[in-house]
Amino acid sequence: MPFMPSMNTADTGALTPLARRSGRMRRSAIREILKVTGNPEIISFAGGLPNPRTFPTSDVADAAAKVLRDDGAAALQYSTTEGYLPLREFIAARYWEKRHLRVDPDEILITNGSQQGLDLLGKVLLDADDTVLLERPAYLGAIQAFSAYEPKFASVTLEDDGPALAELRECLDAHRPKVFYSVPNFQNPSGLSYSAAKREAVGNLCAERPVTLVEDDPYGELRYRGTTLPTLRQYCPTSVLLGSFSKIVAPGLRLGWICAPRRLMDVIVTAKQGVDLHSNYFSQRVVYQHLKDHDLDAHIEKIRELYGRQRDCMVAAIRRHLPAEVKASDPDGGMFLWLKLPAGVSVSRLLKVAIERKVAFVPGSAFFADSEDDSHMRLNFSNSDESRIEEGIRRLGEAIREFGCC
Amino acid sequence: MPFMPSMNTADTGALTPLARRSGRMRRSAIREILKVTGNPEIISFAGGLPNPRTFPTSDVADAAAKVLRDDGAAALQYSTTEGYLPLREFIAARYWEKRHLRVDPDEILITNGSQQGLDLLGKVLLDADDTVLLERPAYLGAIQAFSAYEPKFASVTLEDDGPALAELRECLDAHRPKVFYSVPNFQNPSGLSYSAAKREAVGNLCAERPVTLVEDDPYGELRYRGTTLPTLRQYCPTSVLLGSFSKIVAPGLRLGWICAPRRLMDVIVTAKQGVDLHSNYFSQRVVYQHLKDHDLDAHIEKIRELYGRQRDCMVAAIRRHLPAEVKASDPDGGMFLWLKLPAGVSVSRLLKVAIERKVAFVPGSAFFADSEDDSHMRLNFSNSDESRIEEGIRRLGEAIREFGCC
Repeated sequence: MPFMPSMNTADTGALTPLARRSGRMRRSAIREILKVTGNPEIISFAGGLPNPRTFPTSDVADAAAKVLRDDGAAALQYSTTEGYLPLREFIAARYWEKRHLRVDPDEILITNGSQQGLDLLGKVLLDADDTVLLERPAYLGAIQAFSAYEPKFASVTLEDDGPALAELRECLDAHRPKVFYSVPNFQNPSGLSYSAAKREAVGNLCAERPVTLVEDDPYGELRYRGTTLPTLRQYCPTSVLLGSFSKIVAPGLRLGWICAPRRLMDVIVTAKQGVDLHSNYFSQRVVYQHLKDHDLDAHIEKIRELYGRQRDCMVAAIRRHLPAEVKASDPDGGMFLWLKLPAGVSVSRLLKVAIERKVAFVPGSAFFADSEDDSHMRLNFSNSDESRIEEGIRRLGEAIREFGCC
Repeated sequence: MPFMPSMNTADTGALTPLARRSGRMRRSAIREILKVTGNPEIISFAGGLPNPRTFPTSDVADAAAKVLRDDGAAALQYSTTEGYLPLREFIAARYWEKRHLRVDPDEILITNGSQQGLDLLGKVLLDADDTVLLERPAYLGAIQAFSAYEPKFASVTLEDDGPALAELRECLDAHRPKVFYSVPNFQNPSGLSYSAAKREAVGNLCAERPVTLVEDDPYGELRYRGTTLPTLRQYCPTSVLLGSFSKIVAPGLRLGWICAPRRLMDVIVTAKQGVDLHSNYFSQRVVYQHLKDHDLDAHIEKIRELYGRQRDCMVAAIRRHLPAEVKASDPDGGMFLWLKLPAGVSVSRLLKVAIERKVAFVPGSAFFADSEDDSHMRLNFSNSDESRIEEGIRRLGEAIREFGCC
């Protein structure tokens, strides 16, 4: 064969300049911290991982075997951009059953985790310098996804019961954002949820304005106290809902969905074609088979019990081991606690001390897109068993005392 | 629960204007045709589907069972953005074995099919009004993926042995494109390949200039005649390679890869984080297990034999049934034939007559980004067994005669 010895692939050639947006994209601080915390001696509350004890591994194995045996040739072939219709019908039926929302399966597209829904929304909605309105603090993955489309960010204070309403109205009118990105249930990072009254108020404010309200809901089914509250879509029928199987089945399958009004969905489908043709069809078939053959509600109930206990354990350990000056959120669900340290404390610097003591968390600064704040930390309780939670929080208490901030 | 009756989700609210790029994205003409050809009576040469007879369905089932049994909790968890390291090592080793290219696994990222590689490249490289240089005709999926980043398109004539060199040099110097997108092996739609001499010339031309040479190679292993030729990277060490498991394992698993020099890879990894965190990890584990337990070369040899026979069958049927004025390409591999009809014929209008006669193809006009051409058609031979190829081409001959163009 006429092969020449390959040259070294170091960049010896001339360089293509990168797109301007490449300078605005940032790596996830969390994923960088996770690299440090690979050491199993470190108790990490940094990730946002579900507890693998909740994964229905053998059920997924049964579903995969069944799909490949009964319809393997189709399950491994290219498929439609929108996604497997019975899976979309399942999601639509569940919106009706659990949320009293009428959604047509044609308004649902299967995505590679709900993260891809954020990218697709940025792609079809955002021109450079358009404004995206965030909660403050906000989900880091949304900041990352939207940043690629070079928007301006504005933010509204997230109070214990949801966005500060007067401020929200002001932001909507002053900045005229294209998108308001909300996480009404057990938000990442804060764990906070919108009250029923604020859901109605926020939905109504957005319904009256030319803003796309995005309602990201990866944790909605992980409620440990209280009752389910309405979606914002009850009040703002054009809202876009994002959902995910990552927390109720398993994240490695990378399946989520976007539910958008038909006119917007048409454009999203076109964008998705160009992005990756369609989501992993084999996994769609496997997840649907799993959902058909097993009782999802019973499975979620087990997850709730486990995470609820872990939540309680972390809250109790914080009371026991952390100085009273550290204020912790008290979430009704989800996977995270949000801690505020006294003003002036640099939580990013505290992280270094904590890692020496073999405990890790995410400094809150990563969750502020348009302001500086280094006095918060996010703690994940879903991915650690109770004994590690107790020990990890004890170590965190020592680190805080050693750091001398309280 | 305090639910209100859900409002109808028709767009009753105020509307958010779409991003400018949304007006430039176009739906795949192919996917739209595929909807029409769902009727099993229609013999469709329109898709670009592998033959499901080649899918290693029971091997994939074995691999899935093994992965879930031995390491289920990890296989269903979140994972790294770059992708499963042993799978990246397998790809790197294969580049060395088959192409004599030294590639480090760190220069490889696992994507949702090679289509996602195109989107990521557009994202990190293209600002609005940058130029992308295409082959003429060009792969439609690349036009779609890049269009979202609002570039200008230029194109260079694809001759029987690769790009017209003088024209390529002129285009590179006049347009100073950020990207030259090439498919050197058995291109979609034309089936054409670059000769050894043109590979060297094209690689050298690009190596001397600040252009990112993209070498998309989904069909490289599907060669039915002749011997493997060098990659362009042999001559242009900064080239970006795209690869895919869709044609050598199965497309429903949506796994491909991008191989880029480290400095560019860093930015691509950051972009991928924002887009979807990582590719389907379960499928990565299953495909790796499958590749480890089975002989990929032996499997590819079977695909080659099948598609080679189907190719020969279609070429022979064209000689038998189509008027001599219709000129067909004679590809050494891949999945497509490219037909040129006499000047003045509207192949798009011919399609309507063909569908009445229950045979479908893709009009070539979809593959021209910066010029008008309605005298070509693309025929897929991988997804039809020989008897359907014979009958379909016979019907196509009748349609052409009825249309009265030859």
